[in-house]
Amino acid sequence: MKLQIALDTLVLDEAIVLLDEIIKYIDIIEVGTPFLLEAGNHPVRVLKERYPNVKVLADTKIMDAGEYEAEGAFKAGADIVTVLGVTNKETIVGAQKAAKRYQGEVMIDMVCVEALAERAVELDAMGVDYICCHTAFDVQATGKNPLVELATLKQTVKQAKVAVAGGVNITTLGEIIAKQPDVIVVGGAIANAKDRIAMAKMMKHQIEERL
Amino acid sequence: MKLQIALDTLVLDEAIVLLDEIIKYIDIIEVGTPFLLEAGNHPVRVLKERYPNVKVLADTKIMDAGEYEAEGAFKAGADIVTVLGVTNKETIVGAQKAAKRYQGEVMIDMVCVEALAERAVELDAMGVDYICCHTAFDVQATGKNPLVELATLKQTVKQAKVAVAGGVNITTLGEIIAKQPDVIVVGGAIANAKDRIAMAKMMKHQIEERL
Repeated sequence: MKLQIALDTLVLDEAIVLLDEIIKYIDIIEVGTPFLLEAGNHPVRVLKERYPNVKVLADTKIMDAGEYEAEGAFKAGADIVTVLGVTNKETIVGAQKAAKRYQGEVMIDMVCVEALAERAVELDAMGVDYICCHTAFDVQATGKNPLVELATLKQTVKQAKVAVAGGVNITTLGEIIAKQPDVIVVGGAIANAKDRIAMAKMMKHQIEERL
Repeated sequence: MKLQIALDTLVLDEAIVLLDEIIKYIDIIEVGTPFLLEAGNHPVRVLKERYPNVKVLADTKIMDAGEYEAEGAFKAGADIVTVLGVTNKETIVGAQKAAKRYQGEVMIDMVCVEALAERAVELDAMGVDYICCHTAFDVQATGKNPLVELATLKQTVKQAKVAVAGGVNITTLGEIIAKQPDVIVVGGAIANAKDRIAMAKMMKHQIEERL
């Protein structure tokens, strides 16, 4: 079970200060979508160079031009790119082609996918590397969380690794760990914690106890 | 009827060479998604400063964090941002909030929306500024084009402006103009033309004849 930190800050220097503090508890560094839209692939390049032994995920949320957009991120040093589960099969196949060339991986972000189980089966058969259930930031305030979706994915996905994202915090972590996802994505719960090192350490230890 | 040029090149200097040639025929400059993912908001800032009288659209394809991501692009100088039609209502409302603060506009990209007419009616009622039918780049090779979808939008959308994108070229332009969209998005047909100035001029003149 891996811990992925989603970088919400848009300032590279601040991201580096945070990562230097917590990197020993982190398996995957995520350059978040707003960060990419603001700064492009530059933070992907810098962070991969600074932390060569930690995977870097570019949260590209690719919707079209799969091969082209994925290649851009892989070239910059990303180990994993994200593609939206709602998109066309051709776009996913394109991203997989680029991934193969760069020994990278493709994570499918299932945000807004309606028939989750059915789509997960299709994607799993396509050989994607990760399928991630994801409660959108914009609907977390309505009380939604990804726990039920995670259970659905764990029941339906046989080949791909399963990831979970969307407001995960120290209160909900236990329930999530119990469902045994392969990757747990945490953002604000660490980045905005009063003591970020202690929070990252606590979350990592909870995860390791259940490995 | 406006002509929007989608910038596929990822190099700002090359984009400027192209725009300097054709700018008098262009109503909206689009910083395409791959360009944003590579270079972030930097090209948005530079192009808005260089062409202050031409609208700049950031093809952000927002899927989540609507207010936050839209604000980033508007702050950088974008006049229009794009949001995916497949996303949550909350995300669209968020982008609209940011647009209001910056006197910007929101274009909904309908790529991969399944119930097109039904969704267009909902979005129109939400007061979005543009609804864009869009044949994904990755499926254009299958012979798909946005003409049928454009007809559907023209029949259903009452308030919003209607845009059309996806492989538009000099051969298909006439049919598209006949359906009277408000915005026609052209990319490679101009950017990769042998004589780019002549192509932009010809397309603009065809559009103006039918205004």
